Amino acid sequence: MARKTKPIRSDIAWSTPDRIEVHGKSLPDELLGHINLGDMAFLQIVGRMPTAPESKLFNAVAVTLVEHGITPSALAARLTYAGAPESLQAAVAAGLCGLGTVFVGSTEGTAKMLYEALPPGTKGADLEKIAREVVAGFRARGQIVPGLGHPLHKPVDPRAPRLFQIAKENGFSGDYVKLEQLICAEAERLSGKMLPVNATGAIGAICCELGLPWKIVRGIGVLARAIGLVGHILEESNNPMAIEIWQRVEDEATAHIRPGAA
Amino acid sequence: MARKTKPIRSDIAWSTPDRIEVHGKSLPDELLGHINLGDMAFLQIVGRMPTAPESKLFNAVAVTLVEHGITPSALAARLTYAGAPESLQAAVAAGLCGLGTVFVGSTEGTAKMLYEALPPGTKGADLEKIAREVVAGFRARGQIVPGLGHPLHKPVDPRAPRLFQIAKENGFSGDYVKLEQLICAEAERLSGKMLPVNATGAIGAICCELGLPWKIVRGIGVLARAIGLVGHILEESNNPMAIEIWQRVEDEATAHIRPGAA
Amino acid sequence: MARKTKPIRSDIAWSTPDRIEVHGKSLPDELLGHINLGDMAFLQIVGRMPTAPESKLFNAVAVTLVEHGITPSALAARLTYAGAPESLQAAVAAGLCGLGTVFVGSTEGTAKMLYEALPPGTKGADLEKIAREVVAGFRARGQIVPGLGHPLHKPVDPRAPRLFQIAKENGFSGDYVKLEQLICAEAERLSGKMLPVNATGAIGAICCELGLPWKIVRGIGVLARAIGLVGHILEESNNPMAIEIWQRVEDEATAHIRPGAA
Amino acid sequence: MARKTKPIRSDIAWSTPDRIEVHGKSLPDELLGHINLGDMAFLQIVGRMPTAPESKLFNAVAVTLVEHGITPSALAARLTYAGAPESLQAAVAAGLCGLGTVFVGSTEGTAKMLYEALPPGTKGADLEKIAREVVAGFRARGQIVPGLGHPLHKPVDPRAPRLFQIAKENGFSGDYVKLEQLICAEAERLSGKMLPVNATGAIGAICCELGLPWKIVRGIGVLARAIGLVGHILEESNNPMAIEIWQRVEDEATAHIRPGAA
Repeated sequence: MARKTKPIRSDIAWSTPDRIEVHGKSLPDELLGHINLGDMAFLQIVGRMPTAPESKLFNAVAVTLVEHGITPSALAARLTYAGAPESLQAAVAAGLCGLGTVFVGSTEGTAKMLYEALPPGTKGADLEKIAREVVAGFRARGQIVPGLGHPLHKPVDPRAPRLFQIAKENGFSGDYVKLEQLICAEAERLSGKMLPVNATGAIGAICCELGLPWKIVRGIGVLARAIGLVGHILEESNNPMAIEIWQRVEDEATAHIRPGAA
Repeated sequence: MARKTKPIRSDIAWSTPDRIEVHGKSLPDELLGHINLGDMAFLQIVGRMPTAPESKLFNAVAVTLVEHGITPSALAARLTYAGAPESLQAAVAAGLCGLGTVFVGSTEGTAKMLYEALPPGTKGADLEKIAREVVAGFRARGQIVPGLGHPLHKPVDPRAPRLFQIAKENGFSGDYVKLEQLICAEAERLSGKMLPVNATGAIGAICCELGLPWKIVRGIGVLARAIGLVGHILEESNNPMAIEIWQRVEDEATAHIRPGAA
Repeated sequence: MARKTKPIRSDIAWSTPDRIEVHGKSLPDELLGHINLGDMAFLQIVGRMPTAPESKLFNAVAVTLVEHGITPSALAARLTYAGAPESLQAAVAAGLCGLGTVFVGSTEGTAKMLYEALPPGTKGADLEKIAREVVAGFRARGQIVPGLGHPLHKPVDPRAPRLFQIAKENGFSGDYVKLEQLICAEAERLSGKMLPVNATGAIGAICCELGLPWKIVRGIGVLARAIGLVGHILEESNNPMAIEIWQRVEDEATAHIRPGAA
Repeated sequence: MARKTKPIRSDIAWSTPDRIEVHGKSLPDELLGHINLGDMAFLQIVGRMPTAPESKLFNAVAVTLVEHGITPSALAARLTYAGAPESLQAAVAAGLCGLGTVFVGSTEGTAKMLYEALPPGTKGADLEKIAREVVAGFRARGQIVPGLGHPLHKPVDPRAPRLFQIAKENGFSGDYVKLEQLICAEAERLSGKMLPVNATGAIGAICCELGLPWKIVRGIGVLARAIGLVGHILEESNNPMAIEIWQRVEDEATAHIRPGAA
């Protein structure tokens, strides 16, 4: 008995010998030279060109996550490049593999939380009540509220208010942004700690305002960080730190059992 | 005898509790809302803001490589996502791992070839002679000239002339673009085949015009394709093809030895 | 105010110019030529040499997951190799990235479920009652019980009874194996479907018998599949399928929008 | 005009509902409980069961590369795990991505060098003359002879003589091992430096004795190191170092530009 095949279909792009179209736009004629890289990302993900306010806001969101200095992700990319300098792409890949639930991926958690608390299309919700319920729920489950707090940026993560300002200037400061800020206030009140909305929290909320599916929100951080990692790999090739880090760590980590390490 | 440590240093970015700077620019105040994602990539890689013509050209180069339909890289990302949908970042990473010498990475080969044939700063070179020597060299070594020919896009890869046009409009159509075109003509003449400059060849030449180090040219394709892969993963989550591909291939691949496969 | 550093320490291995020790054993003198690769994996993970029964069972568990024909993971590795044949390691990495919650990683879910239901050291538990509670819990949460059912291997996954037999012959058929089998029976009773213990379910249960932490159980599948992927990449280099798969998929996927595709 | 499809075929393994065969062996009945993990790797790669001497030698080769303490690869895996602890497989993948031309991948370079110098089946070659020509060739091209020298293990890498001893005891100490040792002697003579055959050099030579294709030799290091990385990730989950490394590096790397870092 033969298996019945299902159709395979993609609606993103097609090519013929003389044409390449992406979401209905001619890549050479309508996109190259006409749009910037952030708009191309919007088109690729959303399936249509951004409006001018969407372009401004989406580019700002993506720019935010490109670079944050020496991160575990940048270090993983640099250490990988030291072993396989002929495979720059694999060094970027290694750096991206760590953008999970702890770093960057928390944008996704925020967007999911907000969409679940406030399904798209909801009108006239009592946001303060929802914020209290959301925070109570996380505390009851012993979970951390995503998108709040930062080990370094206290009492404010400077990226968050700036992103909220850009959202406002472009007409995207709606209920999701308000709810995120109310959740922040409630979490700080109940915990007694400084838990500012961090960059990933602001981005999660703004992605909801832009109507992006929560499943893909992490992807914006991933594509942005890919840019950042290319910069770190270039610096590593010119002024390396990976081998030095490796040797220092190896020396220290095994000194307690290594003969002669004194 | 203790090992002497070497300093560890990065000049890309730093953070304090209330500040984040990237290449001397305040991320919240001078970058967010002010620059697009392509300009941020330029800043991250080159270390300074692009001029307006550089911005136009660099964004076009990066946009070119975001998307080219169903590619081996997009398929690897989709197949990975099917097994680990909770790790979108790992699916993007898997897709990037294949951007090596065969696909996308050929941008690097072109840039390296052009820089070696025409070291930066060279004035008044006989480009036709150099083109003949370059092609003769590749043929003598039995190697393929990078950046030429395309299995689908014949007789012209429509991305290449458009990129060269944008380069010209922005004042970056210099000796590297000319040399690439002469190398193309010479390779076609000697081989008798259609070997148009392809997208990676045009990008390699333009990256030389922009003064980017050849070692990092592949990185532009890598960061661009990361954007494209996020779009493919979103589509895969909504309208999957990975499981169907897997089952078809498995059925066919082992039918010659599988009992009852008839 | 300087940050206080914490010590960095690893207890796995150390090297001096003339010695290499792993978990207290001389690699050249006590391991090479004396132990097989599965025993080395046990030593690396558990921190001591396996007993003879542990060696037999652990090797069987690891061997189980090396190979299962054309899988999404094998396809991702082959498609990656087609683009970057110079980076075999990146092709293996791409293949591993998909061993998440859907495939292979389900060993972890089983082990976690069993440890939570029956904490290590529990004596005289009512396993039937626990099995009923476990299955009821998953059903109440709308979750699938991990380690049960297989799309192809029905009514029995032939790897599971064989693994349980090897466990029994080596004295490791205790409460975790019994509980897994009772959970299987209860899930089949309540659902009315064939839900045999699959290979990952059997491995999850046996890893509990061996006392391995649930957090690392997925790792056994990962290391085993790395072996399998190397075999697939070798076959791909000799008798490729990746390019053909890509072209077939691309043709079909975009035929509905591609001019002239009819 | 429709593209003509090519057949897709794999000869490694097949499955039916009640059977799984790998290279003609029943996985449940003939492999599980009967062979160790190293033998399974040999079967997967070579396509047949190893003889007893092949088993002994191949297991020793694979065991050699499992673990060498804190390496760049282990650090990349640990840093990745810190960001995405839910994706152990991606942390292993990140660690593998760096096994390129600088580390581990040099096994491949040695095997390729030896096969090119002494094609399989060659009888009665003048090995001393070949060794001189090989070293002269590398020096003329300004390249490093692969498989020689080690930053730590001087004057001898203790793994190499032990591997050669095991090869000899099992009847695999033929012309490739001799040639590798002669190349070592010649390189030391010409350079005046200590350039002992290192572990990857010994493994490259032994893989030639075993008749493994050079293209897959790197794969043995990759599969072995996957085992090692699982052990490092387990230790990282119990006694982490990644976050501490990150913070130390970040502090030091940007102190020269960070306000208040003094």
